[in-house]
Amino acid sequence: MKKRIDNRFLQRLPVRGSQFATPQDVARDWTDSPHIDLAVEAREFARGVNPQHLDIPGVDMQEHKEEQISVTRIHVQTEAGARAIGKVPGLYTTLEVPDLRHKDPDLQERVAVRLAEELEQYVRLPQNALVLVIGLGNWNVTPDALGPFVVESLFVTRHLFSIMPEVIGDGFRSVCALAPGVLGLTGIETSEIVRGVVENVRPDLVIAIDALAARSIERVNATIQIADSGIHPGAGVGNHRKALTKETLGVPVVAIGVPTVLDAATIASDAMDLLLAHLEKNVPGNGAGHILNQFSRDEKRALVGEVLQPLGNNLMVTPKEIDEFVEDVAHIVAMGLNLALHPAMDLDDAKSLTH
Amino acid sequence: MKKRIDNRFLQRLPVRGSQFATPQDVARDWTDSPHIDLAVEAREFARGVNPQHLDIPGVDMQEHKEEQISVTRIHVQTEAGARAIGKVPGLYTTLEVPDLRHKDPDLQERVAVRLAEELEQYVRLPQNALVLVIGLGNWNVTPDALGPFVVESLFVTRHLFSIMPEVIGDGFRSVCALAPGVLGLTGIETSEIVRGVVENVRPDLVIAIDALAARSIERVNATIQIADSGIHPGAGVGNHRKALTKETLGVPVVAIGVPTVLDAATIASDAMDLLLAHLEKNVPGNGAGHILNQFSRDEKRALVGEVLQPLGNNLMVTPKEIDEFVEDVAHIVAMGLNLALHPAMDLDDAKSLTH
Amino acid sequence: MKKRIDNRFLQRLPVRGSQFATPQDVARDWTDSPHIDLAVEAREFARGVNPQHLDIPGVDMQEHKEEQISVTRIHVQTEAGARAIGKVPGLYTTLEVPDLRHKDPDLQERVAVRLAEELEQYVRLPQNALVLVIGLGNWNVTPDALGPFVVESLFVTRHLFSIMPEVIGDGFRSVCALAPGVLGLTGIETSEIVRGVVENVRPDLVIAIDALAARSIERVNATIQIADSGIHPGAGVGNHRKALTKETLGVPVVAIGVPTVLDAATIASDAMDLLLAHLEKNVPGNGAGHILNQFSRDEKRALVGEVLQPLGNNLMVTPKEIDEFVEDVAHIVAMGLNLALHPAMDLDDAKSLTH
Amino acid sequence: MKKRIDNRFLQRLPVRGSQFATPQDVARDWTDSPHIDLAVEAREFARGVNPQHLDIPGVDMQEHKEEQISVTRIHVQTEAGARAIGKVPGLYTTLEVPDLRHKDPDLQERVAVRLAEELEQYVRLPQNALVLVIGLGNWNVTPDALGPFVVESLFVTRHLFSIMPEVIGDGFRSVCALAPGVLGLTGIETSEIVRGVVENVRPDLVIAIDALAARSIERVNATIQIADSGIHPGAGVGNHRKALTKETLGVPVVAIGVPTVLDAATIASDAMDLLLAHLEKNVPGNGAGHILNQFSRDEKRALVGEVLQPLGNNLMVTPKEIDEFVEDVAHIVAMGLNLALHPAMDLDDAKSLTH
Repeated sequence: MKKRIDNRFLQRLPVRGSQFATPQDVARDWTDSPHIDLAVEAREFARGVNPQHLDIPGVDMQEHKEEQISVTRIHVQTEAGARAIGKVPGLYTTLEVPDLRHKDPDLQERVAVRLAEELEQYVRLPQNALVLVIGLGNWNVTPDALGPFVVESLFVTRHLFSIMPEVIGDGFRSVCALAPGVLGLTGIETSEIVRGVVENVRPDLVIAIDALAARSIERVNATIQIADSGIHPGAGVGNHRKALTKETLGVPVVAIGVPTVLDAATIASDAMDLLLAHLEKNVPGNGAGHILNQFSRDEKRALVGEVLQPLGNNLMVTPKEIDEFVEDVAHIVAMGLNLALHPAMDLDDAKSLTH
Repeated sequence: MKKRIDNRFLQRLPVRGSQFATPQDVARDWTDSPHIDLAVEAREFARGVNPQHLDIPGVDMQEHKEEQISVTRIHVQTEAGARAIGKVPGLYTTLEVPDLRHKDPDLQERVAVRLAEELEQYVRLPQNALVLVIGLGNWNVTPDALGPFVVESLFVTRHLFSIMPEVIGDGFRSVCALAPGVLGLTGIETSEIVRGVVENVRPDLVIAIDALAARSIERVNATIQIADSGIHPGAGVGNHRKALTKETLGVPVVAIGVPTVLDAATIASDAMDLLLAHLEKNVPGNGAGHILNQFSRDEKRALVGEVLQPLGNNLMVTPKEIDEFVEDVAHIVAMGLNLALHPAMDLDDAKSLTH
Repeated sequence: MKKRIDNRFLQRLPVRGSQFATPQDVARDWTDSPHIDLAVEAREFARGVNPQHLDIPGVDMQEHKEEQISVTRIHVQTEAGARAIGKVPGLYTTLEVPDLRHKDPDLQERVAVRLAEELEQYVRLPQNALVLVIGLGNWNVTPDALGPFVVESLFVTRHLFSIMPEVIGDGFRSVCALAPGVLGLTGIETSEIVRGVVENVRPDLVIAIDALAARSIERVNATIQIADSGIHPGAGVGNHRKALTKETLGVPVVAIGVPTVLDAATIASDAMDLLLAHLEKNVPGNGAGHILNQFSRDEKRALVGEVLQPLGNNLMVTPKEIDEFVEDVAHIVAMGLNLALHPAMDLDDAKSLTH
Repeated sequence: MKKRIDNRFLQRLPVRGSQFATPQDVARDWTDSPHIDLAVEAREFARGVNPQHLDIPGVDMQEHKEEQISVTRIHVQTEAGARAIGKVPGLYTTLEVPDLRHKDPDLQERVAVRLAEELEQYVRLPQNALVLVIGLGNWNVTPDALGPFVVESLFVTRHLFSIMPEVIGDGFRSVCALAPGVLGLTGIETSEIVRGVVENVRPDLVIAIDALAARSIERVNATIQIADSGIHPGAGVGNHRKALTKETLGVPVVAIGVPTVLDAATIASDAMDLLLAHLEKNVPGNGAGHILNQFSRDEKRALVGEVLQPLGNNLMVTPKEIDEFVEDVAHIVAMGLNLALHPAMDLDDAKSLTH
């Protein structure tokens, strides 16, 4: 008869489907971390640290505001800029649409069209190119399911070129798509799966969709970022083989990300900042000076860690309607992709063909 | 031809499936709110406010610790006690099991058995009694889906008494169950649906399952509360008709609740408390005295509101593995109910018959 | 210690979520059953039995064909007509749209609009009337999930009249909705739940949505029937209390049904009919006469039963794409209802507000 | 402005998620098809065609019956045997468990254990081998979702060997798993994805899980087949590159299949056979002889096609409880795999670690 597995083994098993936090992750210094997902927030943070610099050398920025949608293009041009801002060199386009949370369908369509327009800068391909869309994340965890949802909604055509070539040819590109799951469900690094598929399918471009974390509440579910620098899962040892980039895959990788959660640490940190600012303003005498002088960044970081201690960086903060928001924004992204990838498709077609 | 609805109407529509926050809700003073879901936390809070009182008059408490499970029984005996603690009179039993997050299946079974034992105090019914289990909450929002999940997992028997009376009779009680949905999905108050079903089905006892919010991170997904005082959705005007209690339904109502979320406000408040405590300890001179004297409860409340402002009390904080936790704890609750309601059922049966 | 439940008990338990077939159901003579869901098929069957009658007395029929949609109105006017056709007296409107299976979104919209037009005959209510929509069926069984899906997609407004009366008033009716589940999941007859809700909510009209079975393959997922006679779950003993009708609920009940499955028995029967017809045509001499004379309706019924014996009437026949079809047709029905119930809503609004 | 896509294009699009029937598929002669999924049924069919042969040369069979479970091992030893039976050479083990439909949990466990025992013959690997489990099929179509469900339930360990090597080492094999989706969702042949993953992950064995079609009602959801010959998606032109076999992947491929549907054609065919047999017995004189002589296999095939014509081979026949059955049998298969792959795991462990 078989001998039962030691119960302590069971208790130590990581919860399936969670992203396993390595010791490095846990120690990740979120307060001055180089890993801020959104370039607009990374730039704000970098400027906050050095408020004397209005501009960051090597980091170019253009802003364009139109009705309800503001578009920011941040170009990280040099390695110095990359270090300053904590993002690898590349072009980061961000659509910020605070009203997206109101579920206005006309606005949703306009965002899809604007997203398609911005995407066209990233997708400069011949008509007969093949595009592989990768939906990163875990379909069982709603805020992480953005990528898989986009893949489910996308109009895939690659197989139609052989099944019905007489109708699909004109004005459609060949598109295929995969949601590879997460390490905890498959035991395989996402990058290993994607590399294998890329080697066999030989796309001209990979577009990777991922859910992000925002540092500012108002950006959650209201922001879409496009980047031509691929996916970088952090700078930890051994992590570079997990990247999805031109270096690791051999083809250009465009990343589309939407922040669906807020770091719980952000709330704790914001609360402390606000309290400190409040005290500085309101405590009479030289108390304020004392306080700010005494209270270092490191102390704050330690206190934030203490607040969140029992569940660690495993907490996520989401709006209550996260389920609807993720579905809606996945639909917008899929529609934007359909419009951008297929020259023959207009908005009505995209509405029909985005599932 | 029909005239299109004004777009501003669409934008003002509440998101479906959300619990609509009334102005009263938004103004809800969470920092000294009487509405803390867990009696153990309400008692801690009340004692914190009046630290001179070790005991709160009219509130009796017993604690019992065993391996990995601690059981607390709080008996709110008087109206004065109810006012002091902010919970209506009744018996509140709480199982706290911090290790429940490690997914140890043996522990899960032990918790189900302990829950059944505690439930037996609440379910003192003749063998031929009829029990109606109500699964409150929205099945589309994971942390709110506890109630519907328990209903899906429960062994319902009421119909079997007429279909196969020869086998079901001995040792089974008649149990039926309903997940009535939420106001945003149905347009009907949960209490209206439950009242209608109670009038037609005429149960001897209603057991209502609901997801709660905790104020302390370590209690999320690790705590089960049983109460004989029913469900009270807040003390707002007109809210009493929404209650599920012996007064509104005409039959006793036992509530089983599990905290699956943390108030985002809690994190902000905890962060400020920790920072204040830190400053008090570390700022030299009489600065500390100044600070604490100056900084009132009202100010803190206002600051917390400011931190969370863009998404208001619409934020929820959950562990990343919320999907698995809710399923697991729903299964434990269903198993505990099956064991408690059917005298003939042992643990092996419960494992088979809990879906 | 508790004694384990006899294993034979477990084996005899009906599968949860199945509609429990009573002995009457099992013996149900489908070949000359009065219980054909679709009135158009019941009429065809009745005429087939008496081919000499082009018209059935007491049963009036009008047909209207337009592009891709054919609309049939069958008015069962007398009890004699009801007996002849096997449907209770009332008006049955059927939309048949064979191309609905091709997922043409323009056609789907046109069907929603036509459905709304036909529904307007059934929904003659003052502006301030309250309508309760009931989604019958089991959300866990795809072909049976039509009703719950419609309820999830519907625009419910009843609660908005108290939350935001200033905007909802004009041109909207008060609509609420419920998917009560099935007996196997709740232990409660659907009719008991609905009766309770009707008594508490007091609607002016109930609209019940249900998945049907068709006898002809080409009608599956391509047909919508509206009837003003409510829901009749078969004429078995005791079954009348399960009906949802004006008699049982005290308010008019309109039923909307879509066939999502085909009786497996239909295939067996069709195969035999085709074979007999083939033999009659092709077997020379007087063999054919022999065959048809010898082979009675009863014999055929017995043979069909024999073919399906191991799984009995528990088999259903569906197209492979049933999941997509049910979602699509649920969306069409919800859109048609939204258009019909709210005078202020045009097609664009309905597209936005149907989820 | 973009020009709208021709509507006829939309109408011709295959339904997403369906397996696209090529013209070859549609013409597939199911009545004497070489493509019967279950070897036990292929052998029965081959013997039925040549009833004079009790044994089929090159096809060895052993049967073993025990309580409620019968195990058949069919060894197709020669190419002649393969042609006779229509299955490629290899060992096919079938567990038939008619009572599996009664949801008896003890029986389910026994079947998982028996499956593990039979699998051990197919999985003769060193302790440090790596196994890749592929869950074929479409997770959106219940009867096709068996493979993805098994993958979701499996205990994957490959990543744990690097995260927690100190506890996972002893008695566990390295297992990873993937549900690659279907061509209609991804635009990529399953075999292309699997090949890419195999090249990157380099497993020692691939185990592919798939849902099958049965020809006999009583085998649906009551049968598990294991084969060492891999997955062969039909013999059509170009189809061999879609196979998952040692030839295409470079590593041995074990296939585990469970019939979850019945071909609709089977019902029609069975009905005709039964009617013909009935007529032969009961029609007096020489009618019977006439009939059977006149009615050829080809005619029957044509008639069956006529019965099913409107939805073609797109129909599937399933029991009404298909959703529960597929989940249950997926759990049994996952538990059997967990037991077979990890020497350290006993039944209690498998119950804990199978999700």
